[in-house]
Amino acid sequence: MTRHLLDSADLTPDEMGFLLETALEFKRRPRKLLQGKHLALLFEKPSLRTRVSFQVGMHHLGGETLYLAPQEVGLGEREAIKDVARVLARYVDIVAVRTFGQVIAEEYARFSDIPVVNALTDEQHPCQALADLLTLRERFGDPRGHSLAFIGDGNNVSSSLVVTAASLGMHVRLATPEGYRPPQTVLEEARARADRTGGSFLLTADPDEAAGGAEALYTDTWISMGQEREAEQRRIDFVGYCLDDRLIARAAPGAFVMHDLPAHRGEEITDAAMESVNSIIFDQAENRVWAQVAVVAFLLGLVDAPAS
Amino acid sequence: MTRHLLDSADLTPDEMGFLLETALEFKRRPRKLLQGKHLALLFEKPSLRTRVSFQVGMHHLGGETLYLAPQEVGLGEREAIKDVARVLARYVDIVAVRTFGQVIAEEYARFSDIPVVNALTDEQHPCQALADLLTLRERFGDPRGHSLAFIGDGNNVSSSLVVTAASLGMHVRLATPEGYRPPQTVLEEARARADRTGGSFLLTADPDEAAGGAEALYTDTWISMGQEREAEQRRIDFVGYCLDDRLIARAAPGAFVMHDLPAHRGEEITDAAMESVNSIIFDQAENRVWAQVAVVAFLLGLVDAPAS
Amino acid sequence: MTRHLLDSADLTPDEMGFLLETALEFKRRPRKLLQGKHLALLFEKPSLRTRVSFQVGMHHLGGETLYLAPQEVGLGEREAIKDVARVLARYVDIVAVRTFGQVIAEEYARFSDIPVVNALTDEQHPCQALADLLTLRERFGDPRGHSLAFIGDGNNVSSSLVVTAASLGMHVRLATPEGYRPPQTVLEEARARADRTGGSFLLTADPDEAAGGAEALYTDTWISMGQEREAEQRRIDFVGYCLDDRLIARAAPGAFVMHDLPAHRGEEITDAAMESVNSIIFDQAENRVWAQVAVVAFLLGLVDAPAS
Repeated sequence: MTRHLLDSADLTPDEMGFLLETALEFKRRPRKLLQGKHLALLFEKPSLRTRVSFQVGMHHLGGETLYLAPQEVGLGEREAIKDVARVLARYVDIVAVRTFGQVIAEEYARFSDIPVVNALTDEQHPCQALADLLTLRERFGDPRGHSLAFIGDGNNVSSSLVVTAASLGMHVRLATPEGYRPPQTVLEEARARADRTGGSFLLTADPDEAAGGAEALYTDTWISMGQEREAEQRRIDFVGYCLDDRLIARAAPGAFVMHDLPAHRGEEITDAAMESVNSIIFDQAENRVWAQVAVVAFLLGLVDAPAS
Repeated sequence: MTRHLLDSADLTPDEMGFLLETALEFKRRPRKLLQGKHLALLFEKPSLRTRVSFQVGMHHLGGETLYLAPQEVGLGEREAIKDVARVLARYVDIVAVRTFGQVIAEEYARFSDIPVVNALTDEQHPCQALADLLTLRERFGDPRGHSLAFIGDGNNVSSSLVVTAASLGMHVRLATPEGYRPPQTVLEEARARADRTGGSFLLTADPDEAAGGAEALYTDTWISMGQEREAEQRRIDFVGYCLDDRLIARAAPGAFVMHDLPAHRGEEITDAAMESVNSIIFDQAENRVWAQVAVVAFLLGLVDAPAS
Repeated sequence: MTRHLLDSADLTPDEMGFLLETALEFKRRPRKLLQGKHLALLFEKPSLRTRVSFQVGMHHLGGETLYLAPQEVGLGEREAIKDVARVLARYVDIVAVRTFGQVIAEEYARFSDIPVVNALTDEQHPCQALADLLTLRERFGDPRGHSLAFIGDGNNVSSSLVVTAASLGMHVRLATPEGYRPPQTVLEEARARADRTGGSFLLTADPDEAAGGAEALYTDTWISMGQEREAEQRRIDFVGYCLDDRLIARAAPGAFVMHDLPAHRGEEITDAAMESVNSIIFDQAENRVWAQVAVVAFLLGLVDAPAS
């Protein structure tokens, strides 16, 4: 059966650990494992990091990419999703889909004979979370037992992050205002995985509680693409959630500052936090390259993965 | 003199047969025949299949493509056609043009020192027709003597199809409502070629007559890009032209179902017809890759073609 | 320190000469000097020549390009310039920026650990000027001592051209209406460089004076991107500046006709001038390829440049 990566929970903890080691190996010594392989980038939202990191990663491993821009796709509008999925499967080896609802990616995958990678949906961002954990893996060695606090919106980025970090045995704290929690299924998945791996998962509405003693502080925009009309209300609801000197002072000394970009200085994060010596924000961006080619090689069955 | 493929009638029947064999050979065993060659894709209309199939095909044969999107080109607006043609000839080896009127492609070719491939105009779609015949060649062996019915609009797709199928000795039936016939020159060309090759060409306004006993049924959208304002009238005029179970029942047992996509289920074709075991629709899409690189290699003089 | 090419004056006369020789050498015998190198094309304005010439040039030397289209970038809007610059430096080896104000390119470069090439700003177009001088180098042998007249707007193209041509020892004449002169710094730089190299620089508001006896006549659009609202006034102000038979008759016999395209026949140049046997306009376009890869190889330190 064709394997996809649509939701972070599609991967077992063992597979996540394997992907990080594979990514590190590719980063140290890229080899032409993807020669002759084509990845289609089917993007319904604009992108800089996601697109460039997939393209550069594929090139480093000898593969090719085809970028299909928002105005060219029209999934389900210009053409039925099931037709697009079946046509592309005739042309390329694997496809990365960047779209709106998770249901679109799921329907796409249902009709795809080739692996589908979620390159961001409104609900999940599994490649980002793997890149983030790869970045922590580089800093901590094994992330197991280390602590990570996400302070902000319970969006796609934090949903994927808490499940992935919990899977790798981290002590995960998530601070969101009441109305901005991730879906219940995500919270349960994170808790269940933390239980299994010896990590922990704390949900709170108090940023100070989440940040207290944490070894890494992570935030993301409060206003994702498509939420521009709610901007004013969101800025009110997220008062106190800005990743600033005050929050950093509560964290462990030398706590890493993380953000998946693009950042809005003065909203969810201060310029000082972004520019601090403990910022590993650009490492996160760089590691997208290696996390993603590891996923591609894994889904194509080109690396020896642990039995799932 | 530089050779172009602007109109299906630009190719002799022998050349069409040769292109199908070349395409099959490339499909079985791609070889790096196009190494160092650049194809520019000059597209004034959006595209998924056409673009991806050219890009993947070029890669399979070792070549490179450059995609110039609609908003970047402005043929004859931002820049004179004759200037664009002469500039691109300095940069690349061959160009595929996807544009509006056939006259634009013709003017472009007049000033181009490098081969120009028609990748769809309002009047012609020669690459699609070659991919379609390649698909029938795979099913029938030699298409000669087999029957094919196109039921629908006398548009670019059917215009190229009837000339190409007649050139290869097929018994071609074309059913269109009175006001939707292809241009007279296309009808005459199809008839003349059928006479030469031992095929036949029937024009009718009765879908049942065209479908009767046919070994393949082909349709295409009733409302092409740019005809959205005529949509209501067209839906009335094409009543009875839907490729559905009723029409399939009139065809030969096991008749193939064909469509060049994108399809509009419930208009020109039913979901059941598209999803039937006799549908070869996705084979048609796949064969775009191989028909097109055969055309590229032929126009670049890289394969030994029959004397024309 | 990372070396950039933002302004033509960033290069010494010796370096310009070296770049022309390197470009000629690459044009004669491309070698895979840029294998494994990625160039990002960060374009905030549409482009045909600039984009295709960079892409084809990189391919010829074994490198790869990533095209980021205007709608994908949003420098300073969607994302802070300093963040884009630092992220891209993690992905690619060199970046070509096509943007509005020179200050944007400068700010970008300030935060970029990798070389930045100006691929057109409102003020400068150094790659075009190098391609132009390469074209004259092919015709004249050494351009030193030969004469060149630019007749038209004191825009980015002419600003870069006069400094580059003066650096290479040419006798440069620039005719612009009073209100359309290049910035004072450009005029001073051109004069200073002409003094150093044995060339000369004449500024005039009389097209006939500039054209008189010149061995090459160059013009460019009167209405650049973004100046559409001033079009009417500009057409009045540039009366007498059209590169036509009358001006050509004043130049040296066989004087070359130059334009960086796109051209507006009947405005700044006549169709007859563009199509004349002395037009080297398409050579200029072709030479963008080779001038630009020479710049890329130079900024990456892959060719032995003169000490600056």
